[in-house]
Amino acid sequence: MKEISGAVTAPKGFSASGIHCGIRKSKTKKDLALILSATPASAAAVYTCNLVKGAPLVVTKQNLSDGIARAVICNSGNANTCNADGEEIANGVCSLLAQKLAISPSDVIVASTGVIGQPLSLQPFADGMDDLVAHLTDSADDAAEAIMTTDTHAKCVAVEFTVGGKTCRIGGIAKGSGMIHPNMATMLVFLTSDVKISAQMLNKALGEDVKTSFNMVSVDGDTSTNDMLSILANGMAGNEEITCENDDYSEFCKALHFVTVKLCRMIAKDGEGATKLLECKISGALDDKNAKILAKSVITSSLFKAAMFGADANWGRVLCALGYSGAQTNVNKIDVSFVSKVGSIAVCANGAGLPFDEDIAKKILSQDEIIIDIHCKDGDSSAVAWGCDLTYDYVKINGDYRT
Amino acid sequence: MKEISGAVTAPKGFSASGIHCGIRKSKTKKDLALILSATPASAAAVYTCNLVKGAPLVVTKQNLSDGIARAVICNSGNANTCNADGEEIANGVCSLLAQKLAISPSDVIVASTGVIGQPLSLQPFADGMDDLVAHLTDSADDAAEAIMTTDTHAKCVAVEFTVGGKTCRIGGIAKGSGMIHPNMATMLVFLTSDVKISAQMLNKALGEDVKTSFNMVSVDGDTSTNDMLSILANGMAGNEEITCENDDYSEFCKALHFVTVKLCRMIAKDGEGATKLLECKISGALDDKNAKILAKSVITSSLFKAAMFGADANWGRVLCALGYSGAQTNVNKIDVSFVSKVGSIAVCANGAGLPFDEDIAKKILSQDEIIIDIHCKDGDSSAVAWGCDLTYDYVKINGDYRT
Repeated sequence: MKEISGAVTAPKGFSASGIHCGIRKSKTKKDLALILSATPASAAAVYTCNLVKGAPLVVTKQNLSDGIARAVICNSGNANTCNADGEEIANGVCSLLAQKLAISPSDVIVASTGVIGQPLSLQPFADGMDDLVAHLTDSADDAAEAIMTTDTHAKCVAVEFTVGGKTCRIGGIAKGSGMIHPNMATMLVFLTSDVKISAQMLNKALGEDVKTSFNMVSVDGDTSTNDMLSILANGMAGNEEITCENDDYSEFCKALHFVTVKLCRMIAKDGEGATKLLECKISGALDDKNAKILAKSVITSSLFKAAMFGADANWGRVLCALGYSGAQTNVNKIDVSFVSKVGSIAVCANGAGLPFDEDIAKKILSQDEIIIDIHCKDGDSSAVAWGCDLTYDYVKINGDYRT
Repeated sequence: MKEISGAVTAPKGFSASGIHCGIRKSKTKKDLALILSATPASAAAVYTCNLVKGAPLVVTKQNLSDGIARAVICNSGNANTCNADGEEIANGVCSLLAQKLAISPSDVIVASTGVIGQPLSLQPFADGMDDLVAHLTDSADDAAEAIMTTDTHAKCVAVEFTVGGKTCRIGGIAKGSGMIHPNMATMLVFLTSDVKISAQMLNKALGEDVKTSFNMVSVDGDTSTNDMLSILANGMAGNEEITCENDDYSEFCKALHFVTVKLCRMIAKDGEGATKLLECKISGALDDKNAKILAKSVITSSLFKAAMFGADANWGRVLCALGYSGAQTNVNKIDVSFVSKVGSIAVCANGAGLPFDEDIAKKILSQDEIIIDIHCKDGDSSAVAWGCDLTYDYVKINGDYRT
């Protein structure tokens, strides 16, 4: 398996486009993205757990009931959520695209991201549809840009791997970066692959993957209404179709996980206002469930996140977050170290503080990727969660998001 | 019932003191508080739910096993938590005070607040004990000041009420202001009363009260290791002892709730970095449990808290927080209004946005106390939760708390 360039257009038979169609006020900001497969593809998706679900998610769920799709269309600048005519609009977007491409509206995955509760008109979609399709290209850059909201940069990844002797690819684009929290498909992520795989196995692979990828990312503890992770696999790599949990399936899952974890880290690192990626590694937990609860609790603690912003080795806040997590653990056995590319430092052993050099700790914590390494001595289970620091800019961005 | 001055020294037979004994570096910052009852008092306490429990809490729990206490001693500047000799030190503090006052060490409530995992020496307590007792006075001001950490001002309240024809009083002091979250006694709160009440009924009253007072406050979602709410009732008001749930008990509970809610609001409003108090009122919920979950979810949403800092009427974030709360509710029936002393504005009806005047909304949300009024139409239950906005200063305070 190796990383390659190209994102969602790296797999065979996929093209993408991104334009400004007028949903966002600023003409320099792209607001509409399209990803298209040359042939019908197996399709699967995971949706937010929020009871408030964006209209596009409801429509996509209906459209994916047959496990087949051709295209993904996504706008930024408006979430199309909590609008009385939301589903009508989302269906309208699918119809406009389907008409233009001469495909079925039910083969379209539709997504929206932006402010909740603002009326969304079909007009900019209608106005922009020709332009959107005309700009289809083998580069994913414009599409990746068009789905951004408060992201500071586009998030792209692709890998190449082998299934049954055939070279296959998975590519992805994603957007963060606020309202990101475990227990959902946490953000907009669009994956493509040229692997040949049944819709059922694709769905299974995606459902398993999110448990240790996107469901372990938190930026701010808020679970958005609109987030969705989807994958299209068009089979153009020519491998024998994956229809059961064989070695080929395992290879595919491995490549999928590489892509999803990479996107998770990108999303967390580019969390709203973030200056650094936090990776909490739990080992020695009683079981998987407790390991995950512990890892998430640290990564979501506002106090700990603010301490990391200040490069302050305040490990007491780590113990505190483990203690109130609700997980079963013996806090008097816990060891904690901080790790970054310049070194590592043990700060707590068996639940009590160790003497440590504050200057070294400061240097370690001043890097842009920090691992919080926690060993529980309760059992053999481990988990990893990703998050980011809490900064002035998070407050600034969210203090006046709508303007 | 009427509000009076005096805080913990308002009830008969209580005196208090606060000094600098050397736990904190700055000599201008008081760091040791004492509250003393002239006679043995019925005593009860509620403790943090965090698995990591400060050593003082463990010792206090032991000391209160007989339901009797005389004194409360509390230091700021060091949490005495995650220290190998923590309980030894906490017991030592009780012994030093007991020796000085010629009382039993088991009649002392001991508490600490500050940084976790820093060794705490008995020396400053030994050095300051004479001074602490010498400064006992009928003012609670010094004690209220000595328990402060990042609080911007002392928190004091007292009420006078009648039980069985006798005038009684309850007074309290509290400290916030970070690491405050539901599911615990959320902060340090010391209450005194001259009511005559059995330890059993006092314990019952306190346990019931926190469910709708301190357990409904959140500043940052972090449940501290050290927080404790305690009450001493010395019976000097001369009422017939309350030993069952009669009218006298109801009167006492009413007065207690007035005091605790007042302190809750003070603590939330003075949350770390906060510029405004947020009060989330849920009505029409399915049952009490769901009402509480909904109210807490809004008050703890970082995105919503940041929007309130910016006086941004982003009601979509309210719906979003209700939707991911885990509570049973029909989001398509929810109404939301923002209320402050200058007016109120309806922003959402039946889960969809209403047209509203942004200028008026801005004016309403620019006040320092905001009510988020939410009607669910699911049933007859209601709940109130208190929190504060998320600001630059929260990040600043917590980015480098230890220095």
